[in-house]
Amino acid sequence: MKAEILATGDEIRSGALVDSNSAYISAKLEENGIQVMRHTCVGDDLVLLVATLREIGDRVDLAVVTGGLGPTTDDLTAEAAAGAAGVRLTLNQSALENVESFFKKFNRPMTESNRKQALLPEGSQLLYNPVGTAPGFSLAVGRCRFFFLPGVPYEMRRMLDEHVIPGMLSLQGDAAMHSRVKTITTFGLPESLAGEKVAGVEAAFPGIKLGLRANFPQIQVKLYGRDTDPAKLDQRMAGAGQWALERLGRNVISENGERMEAVVGRLLLERSASIGLAESCTGGLLANWLTNVAGSSAYFFFAGVTYSNQAKIDVLGVRPETLEKHGAVHEETAREMAEGVRRVAGTTYGLSTSGIAGPDGGTEDKPVGTVCVGYAGPDRSFGRRLYFPFGKRLMNKQIFSMAALDILRRNLLGTDKSVGRGKAEGSTCKGEPGT
Amino acid sequence: MKAEILATGDEIRSGALVDSNSAYISAKLEENGIQVMRHTCVGDDLVLLVATLREIGDRVDLAVVTGGLGPTTDDLTAEAAAGAAGVRLTLNQSALENVESFFKKFNRPMTESNRKQALLPEGSQLLYNPVGTAPGFSLAVGRCRFFFLPGVPYEMRRMLDEHVIPGMLSLQGDAAMHSRVKTITTFGLPESLAGEKVAGVEAAFPGIKLGLRANFPQIQVKLYGRDTDPAKLDQRMAGAGQWALERLGRNVISENGERMEAVVGRLLLERSASIGLAESCTGGLLANWLTNVAGSSAYFFFAGVTYSNQAKIDVLGVRPETLEKHGAVHEETAREMAEGVRRVAGTTYGLSTSGIAGPDGGTEDKPVGTVCVGYAGPDRSFGRRLYFPFGKRLMNKQIFSMAALDILRRNLLGTDKSVGRGKAEGSTCKGEPGT
Repeated sequence: MKAEILATGDEIRSGALVDSNSAYISAKLEENGIQVMRHTCVGDDLVLLVATLREIGDRVDLAVVTGGLGPTTDDLTAEAAAGAAGVRLTLNQSALENVESFFKKFNRPMTESNRKQALLPEGSQLLYNPVGTAPGFSLAVGRCRFFFLPGVPYEMRRMLDEHVIPGMLSLQGDAAMHSRVKTITTFGLPESLAGEKVAGVEAAFPGIKLGLRANFPQIQVKLYGRDTDPAKLDQRMAGAGQWALERLGRNVISENGERMEAVVGRLLLERSASIGLAESCTGGLLANWLTNVAGSSAYFFFAGVTYSNQAKIDVLGVRPETLEKHGAVHEETAREMAEGVRRVAGTTYGLSTSGIAGPDGGTEDKPVGTVCVGYAGPDRSFGRRLYFPFGKRLMNKQIFSMAALDILRRNLLGTDKSVGRGKAEGSTCKGEPGT
Repeated sequence: MKAEILATGDEIRSGALVDSNSAYISAKLEENGIQVMRHTCVGDDLVLLVATLREIGDRVDLAVVTGGLGPTTDDLTAEAAAGAAGVRLTLNQSALENVESFFKKFNRPMTESNRKQALLPEGSQLLYNPVGTAPGFSLAVGRCRFFFLPGVPYEMRRMLDEHVIPGMLSLQGDAAMHSRVKTITTFGLPESLAGEKVAGVEAAFPGIKLGLRANFPQIQVKLYGRDTDPAKLDQRMAGAGQWALERLGRNVISENGERMEAVVGRLLLERSASIGLAESCTGGLLANWLTNVAGSSAYFFFAGVTYSNQAKIDVLGVRPETLEKHGAVHEETAREMAEGVRRVAGTTYGLSTSGIAGPDGGTEDKPVGTVCVGYAGPDRSFGRRLYFPFGKRLMNKQIFSMAALDILRRNLLGTDKSVGRGKAEGSTCKGEPGT
């Protein structure tokens, strides 16, 4: 079956917002064997919306529409869908309960404009929204079954998984294909190199499709399999997964989509260990990532975000002589920061960052993109210098944080074979992390 | 004049790559008074490409097409353009020189497939590519003037500025439309309520269009205006902007798209003031936001992310009796954290958070979504309890951080009229921040 995707809204049409929903939906549909022919975006324009829905209804079997289901006057999708199908809008009692339950749950007053969200085209089927006020719906226009979803990404994603994909697969009928996805998360390889390492998987395991997704600074290698026979499919997926894991080697962070901060948290928990952070250039991002994991208070006790030298001395006990001699961005400073936070926080491990995220502050010796990561554990401590060739401040904060967590991860696993061991020892390595 | 944008390529169609080009082009065209009606994306499919170019050629006056100008077999754009216009492909001597000059400049060997890039539709005009091998071209199909550009973002952007915008403006001639966008960023109003407050702007100022964009936990109110007379347009925009600002009142954070952390940073700089943070439940997110702003080291010195009670006592000097009596999530604890970090960091202001982000840890008295914000300044300090009805940990971290920054912002501006003043004074207020 063939599908199209329609994104609605003036903020996307006018370029104020990049439409990431359509790519997400496309990838999900393609994973499930539904071919996506076209994406379209139009603004909050009733006449054009109606015309576009009719065009799509004449062209394909399935369509997903995002946006325009909110409570305000520029939310026109339900009205446009009714117009395209030639039906009226009516109050859908279940949709009203969906909206009301959301307000009841959070003890907030429901406004009259929220009632508008329960007006759905006659003959449409409600798609329950478990995480927001905008109910979705599905409706036939022309020869096409449309699925209308809110534009808020996390609401859309949840409803796509719960309603749209199962609905589309059941419409596909007997030719039901089983599908599997394996996600291998890596760090330390650029996308092109990761791609080269696993490019042969499609030839080695016929029927397996390879996809790469850059989720900076992590790269996800995805293996997609489809077959009518689930047992055969599982066997083939297992073989292909093993093949890819061997080729990606120690750059693999997880095999199940787990992010770096969750992996590190699990490793700490398994060891009944704890962590303290001393952040300079990463400015709290490391702590923020670690504390995004529910239950992280079991192993994360304290982070000192020491942006000034004085705070490095006062809070972490970095020696003024070290700062005078080497400056803030140096292996020895990073090591003293890691040791200091380990002592102050009373944790098993200490991890630190000090570097130059940019846009200013770079020198010939220490250009923007330079970071020193400090590690302190029960047996040893070290500082290690890394360099990343990115000019952007926010990218540098992210890759610095990820590189620091990767050093901690490898030390927890006992696979850190790089230089930079022993007390007061420093090291410099340029280029990709972990190479 | 009306325009459309077409992105081509299987990597975009299949969702492997998010199409950021179309948003960029839309914004540039709209800035120059050219109304963008629709974006489309289709894959590397010759028949569909020809059909889509013809459709667009029937609908609008101007179009920008990106992608498919490379040397490989799946680069089909020139062939599709020739097919849609009913002309042949011929070797364009200037285009060949464009390609050759690039290889000469970088001393790289030119392959036969690169010669293909110089085959352009008969009657087309070359658009010189100064930064890559793929020459662009412009061609009329139907009633529409098409501009074909490479898909590589930095090549596309350069050629859009140098060729497409000037070309379109000269085609527009006298009837050129001017357009303006005003972005008002708010915090503390749900989207529906923000929408209701400003819904009347379109009636009060004919020709102004309203758009709302939720960028959780901030809501942006956008006013779009278009007119052939720029002076009239500016006057109408100013009136509409004033009207909306009055209705949104003290929930307005900025009038120019500036985010909360940038506003707070600017206010601190203007006052030659500095800030220290003491974070519990927000786990470093507040520090991370503040340090996303380049130059923030001028006013941000230190954040103590004190997840454990011991760290609150050791690093911030919170009194053990306070923690024993009230627990970590309390107005008085938050106040002592803010005072402590102000003292430790030696800053003008101290700001703290302690709360329950979830998913666990809530009680009847202090459910998930409860946060106590502490403020300490030269003249006073206080703790204030807030409650937000969100169940998700990451949303809570965000809205807690934003609420804390909003309390700092209002105190910097002298507009914090809420309760919770004076030393050791606490307050509790439920519901939306700032209400």
